Amino acid sequence: MKDDQVKELLGRTVAERFVQSGMKLGLGTGSTAVWAIRRIGELLQEGVIDSIVGVATSSQSEVEAHAAGIALRTMNDPEMVAGLDLTIDGADEVDAHGNLTKGGGGALLIEKVVAYASKRVIIIVGQDKLVNHLGLRFPIPVEVVPLARMPVVRTIEELGCEVKLRTAVRKMGAVITDNGNIILDVSLPAPTDIAEFERVLNNIPGVVENGVFSRLAAEIWYGTSEGQVLQFAPRR
Amino acid sequence: MKDDQVKELLGRTVAERFVQSGMKLGLGTGSTAVWAIRRIGELLQEGVIDSIVGVATSSQSEVEAHAAGIALRTMNDPEMVAGLDLTIDGADEVDAHGNLTKGGGGALLIEKVVAYASKRVIIIVGQDKLVNHLGLRFPIPVEVVPLARMPVVRTIEELGCEVKLRTAVRKMGAVITDNGNIILDVSLPAPTDIAEFERVLNNIPGVVENGVFSRLAAEIWYGTSEGQVLQFAPRR
Repeated sequence: MKDDQVKELLGRTVAERFVQSGMKLGLGTGSTAVWAIRRIGELLQEGVIDSIVGVATSSQSEVEAHAAGIALRTMNDPEMVAGLDLTIDGADEVDAHGNLTKGGGGALLIEKVVAYASKRVIIIVGQDKLVNHLGLRFPIPVEVVPLARMPVVRTIEELGCEVKLRTAVRKMGAVITDNGNIILDVSLPAPTDIAEFERVLNNIPGVVENGVFSRLAAEIWYGTSEGQVLQFAPRR
Repeated sequence: MKDDQVKELLGRTVAERFVQSGMKLGLGTGSTAVWAIRRIGELLQEGVIDSIVGVATSSQSEVEAHAAGIALRTMNDPEMVAGLDLTIDGADEVDAHGNLTKGGGGALLIEKVVAYASKRVIIIVGQDKLVNHLGLRFPIPVEVVPLARMPVVRTIEELGCEVKLRTAVRKMGAVITDNGNIILDVSLPAPTDIAEFERVLNNIPGVVENGVFSRLAAEIWYGTSEGQVLQFAPRR
């Protein structure tokens, strides 16, 4: 099974297995999570489930949710005051302890807000995303206010990391996030205490959020090239 | 001497005493710091100093710097790569250890970026701003992305704090910062480990920055109603 097929299978499978009528859902971003949104739309259309409301984690998932016929709310809606029942989202990397990085799709800030407001979080990834240490192969995205770019770059470089400004395609210059900020892609030089790294990054003035999710007790499901959908058991 | 006169005296005095030709300056925000900007403009005009460049910490200080004839740069300018020589700014409160809160003027994010990029920081306050504990009388501002308002309010309330959305004057609804965000004014219920509180706030998804400055070794100068300008000696 090819990677794209594994992504589709994963998204559709978790939507069928875990989404129930009446749920308030966090709708993830990326090439895997999009298949969960699409399958939820089909299940609504088929009358298998009803009374679903969702919160989009990006402009991508907003457009997909509209196309799928999922009613959207914001996290500020009084309906959402008790939090979300379930969020389904992808990840860039998952380590042996269940720590994640996210933000390859540039939506880390809202993904983090939504995930931490959810009673249950299901992360779906291809088997290749399971790694020993985060941030070595796939960089960790850091969302930064544009006018603090250089001070933040310098501060993160002083931590020993390699920092690259994420540049856009089909637009000149930097990628601008859905929140009007830029993204720095940060590669770690060696295995690192990732929970501490998350805190350090967030305390640099000008950093809005970063793609490390170290405090999230998510369930992780992964897909194999043989077409299996399996649950990953992290060492907590 | 009235409060307004003390502010003017403070701003003018520190500008005269500490600003030297060739300096790269952080230009603070608020009713006290503005007098430093104006005095720097006069000193440039009089030819007492020259070759000054500044970085504005807000739309207020940008306008004042333009009016004062101070050349402005951004923190991303290659000229600023080695940081700033001196920042002069006000504060909302200063505790006995020299920890500060800032952001009454809504500029905490850029004030923090600029202050932490400065070799020397001079904070100027009226004597009434010197307090035993921060955040009890004057609330601590927290800058938040608009769509995370309710999740962040709930999380901070769960810490035992009182949270108020800062509402605008001459505009309906919330104050919007120079960075497009909202401000929550957070009152502490009791004396608190303020350095830890700063870190906790910054790790709430949706919080961009907060007004606690606990890691800044600033020099603090205060003005008295008798017209004295004195240096405050914090217990570090």
